[in-house]
Amino acid sequence: MPVSHITLRTGHTDGYLDNLSRALHESLVASFEVPLQDCFQVFHQLDGVALRFDPNYLGGPRSEDWGLIEITAGKPRSVETKRRFYSDLATRLEKSLGLAPADVMVVIRHNQAEDWSFSHGIATLIDKEIKS
Amino acid sequence: MPVSHITLRTGHTDGYLDNLSRALHESLVASFEVPLQDCFQVFHQLDGVALRFDPNYLGGPRSEDWGLIEITAGKPRSVETKRRFYSDLATRLEKSLGLAPADVMVVIRHNQAEDWSFSHGIATLIDKEIKS
Amino acid sequence: MPVSHITLRTGHTDGYLDNLSRALHESLVASFEVPLQDCFQVFHQLDGVALRFDPNYLGGPRSEDWGLIEITAGKPRSVETKRRFYSDLATRLEKSLGLAPADVMVVIRHNQAEDWSFSHGIATLIDKEIKS
Repeated sequence: MPVSHITLRTGHTDGYLDNLSRALHESLVASFEVPLQDCFQVFHQLDGVALRFDPNYLGGPRSEDWGLIEITAGKPRSVETKRRFYSDLATRLEKSLGLAPADVMVVIRHNQAEDWSFSHGIATLIDKEIKS
Repeated sequence: MPVSHITLRTGHTDGYLDNLSRALHESLVASFEVPLQDCFQVFHQLDGVALRFDPNYLGGPRSEDWGLIEITAGKPRSVETKRRFYSDLATRLEKSLGLAPADVMVVIRHNQAEDWSFSHGIATLIDKEIKS
Repeated sequence: MPVSHITLRTGHTDGYLDNLSRALHESLVASFEVPLQDCFQVFHQLDGVALRFDPNYLGGPRSEDWGLIEITAGKPRSVETKRRFYSDLATRLEKSLGLAPADVMVVIRHNQAEDWSFSHGIATLIDKEIKS
């Protein structure tokens, strides 16, 4: 059920986005209790003036490859699960993209099961009869 | 008080956005306890590489017309109100746009009354003296 | 730790964005308990069809310079702090940009300390050992 918004600098190739998309989703599935098919991602690419970040605050040094990954999730996850996810994600992004762990920032937001309608005008996570 | 972010594929006409905007707002007014004038909407149109969604997870089949509607609302709403809103919105979008109910995804987030400043540097929903 | 998304009409100069960025960050530091280096901002510029707002609901009159500032913050802030921040921000934007207080809208969302990984695959705000 997560929806992820990924914000990064303009100028990355489609292949880079493909790899980022795949690594993020594989990490959510492997370590954030997300079903395999549950993939919803929005990529925002912004130029220099529109994307601003401190290079060193609580981490870094951040480069022009810095990516901000904002995830909205309905189901609660334990602190331990979040720890595992952050670590797993940084590892996968480094392996598949060569993205430095210094350049990976994640922000999670939670809402409730009742706050999701996946389609067909129903409160999917509490009423789940999909008319397909 | 809701702010809605609507994300969809690039290539829809201005008329399509107009109709989507109107149907969404009418549905919020009719079934989500939103005042008539309380309309704040941001549309994000993204190309194929930047917008990724599973065609069948908990619904669908989703098409290239798929739209993600993310709503931030301050006032709490009951589960019953949310159920009614999801259903009403899918019905209206189908009627006014021909948008398939399979292609309508909604995510709601709540914050508090104190988290809104509509203008003039005041905490509008708790202090409401607009200096206009 | 806040991440701010600023949405406004297309057509503002880079200098305008620079000034808006600076005034917003100075206000967060001065009145919202944000460390000086803790600056993460994303600007979304949208054309007329994609950005829709009521000119007068609970404030205004809003003009084409209207800006929506959405802030995600981890640490709780008091109502009094939020009041002070809204007022300080509107004052600074007017002074540095000539932006009318009627055109400044702010929405705050909170999450938890465990919901932030600033870099290096760790839950920064609870585990804070940055491997730099």
